[in-house]
Amino acid sequence: MGGIISIPKRTLERLPVYYRVLTQCLAEGMEYISSGELGDRAGFDNAQVRKDLNHIWSGGRPGLGYEIAKLAECLADFLGLNNTTDAVLVGAGRLGTALAGYPGFSGYGLNIVAVFDCDPEKTGGRIGDIPIMPVAKLPDLIRRLGIKLGIITVPGESAQEITDVMVAAGILAIWNFAPVRLQVPEGVLVRNEDLAASLATLSYYLRQHSLAKEKGQTLDSTAAEGN
Amino acid sequence: MGGIISIPKRTLERLPVYYRVLTQCLAEGMEYISSGELGDRAGFDNAQVRKDLNHIWSGGRPGLGYEIAKLAECLADFLGLNNTTDAVLVGAGRLGTALAGYPGFSGYGLNIVAVFDCDPEKTGGRIGDIPIMPVAKLPDLIRRLGIKLGIITVPGESAQEITDVMVAAGILAIWNFAPVRLQVPEGVLVRNEDLAASLATLSYYLRQHSLAKEKGQTLDSTAAEGN
Repeated sequence: MGGIISIPKRTLERLPVYYRVLTQCLAEGMEYISSGELGDRAGFDNAQVRKDLNHIWSGGRPGLGYEIAKLAECLADFLGLNNTTDAVLVGAGRLGTALAGYPGFSGYGLNIVAVFDCDPEKTGGRIGDIPIMPVAKLPDLIRRLGIKLGIITVPGESAQEITDVMVAAGILAIWNFAPVRLQVPEGVLVRNEDLAASLATLSYYLRQHSLAKEKGQTLDSTAAEGN
Repeated sequence: MGGIISIPKRTLERLPVYYRVLTQCLAEGMEYISSGELGDRAGFDNAQVRKDLNHIWSGGRPGLGYEIAKLAECLADFLGLNNTTDAVLVGAGRLGTALAGYPGFSGYGLNIVAVFDCDPEKTGGRIGDIPIMPVAKLPDLIRRLGIKLGIITVPGESAQEITDVMVAAGILAIWNFAPVRLQVPEGVLVRNEDLAASLATLSYYLRQHSLAKEKGQTLDSTAAEGN
């Protein structure tokens, strides 16, 4: 794991899915799994599984398949699940509170060290163990703790301003839940979690389905399929 | 909008972004916008914008650009923002409560008619105006109201069971926030909102960044870029 391995983004997104399937298999007492069965359980085809895992793994044994414990460990290493990434979250509204309080993230190595909000009614409080602090203290905390990951759950109109503050203080990766596109300098990665776009995909499919039904046609669900 | 227009999934996901930019432009009093400026604001390049909008729009005027009000109306029609999609949500935990209470969805035509949970401490209560009902009543409500969209925010181990109940009752599209791949019959669309996969992308980027720094190399942020 020493070097910089370049890996396609879609592959990277499938690796956590394989990891979850493998931990389920371990829990069931399995020792080996074929790429076909891994694919069945993960929802991807055989060839896709082998191609994805070839990026990080060279230990497949013909006839036996993957050794589950070793492959899971390799994935955990690669995905950094054994390291912890510290993050700040800005926006203690409903979604921010849900994310900050979500116990599942710790299993993926995310540690939200502080939540920030501009509402003085909220600051001074806590979400679980995490303190809610005033936004004015954001740059200092990012610098002091050397934090590189920022999560944005503020309304759209404040998101760019918060982004600028984060980037100026040294944030290198932003997980954006605000429904706007953020402008960032080169070298800063933004990952947009666009719930409105997901919703549009689903309602488009349902509308096409009801149109097709009216016309007596059938519709291919793969045409609008999610990830 | 009578016919069944087939449109690439990635294009479909970008259309809500264009729509949001256009409504911002209208609020600023603009009347026309070029594909270049629309692209700048939306975060996609010129050629991409024109290609995407060609799927649904044939009214660009050379030299003037897109007429903002008309294009926005066309997008709203296409995305079904003027129609309402009724949905049920199962899982009144933190994330489910956040989603059910999120005011932004109504602007995208989503109407969550009821939330379901198996915890008797929660059922009988409300999230805003939305009643929380016992899971035993799920199939009947789906059938009675003819609901086609189901949102799943239960823990991974219950997600397949809820999916089976939903599909048997007539649900055709599932928005899945549980960290598992669901098995569904052909013709049912699943859209996975995989927060763990997003997180893996971001922490991978940060790790590569710190490795590159150690080695004095530079890193291309586009390699791991979000949508």
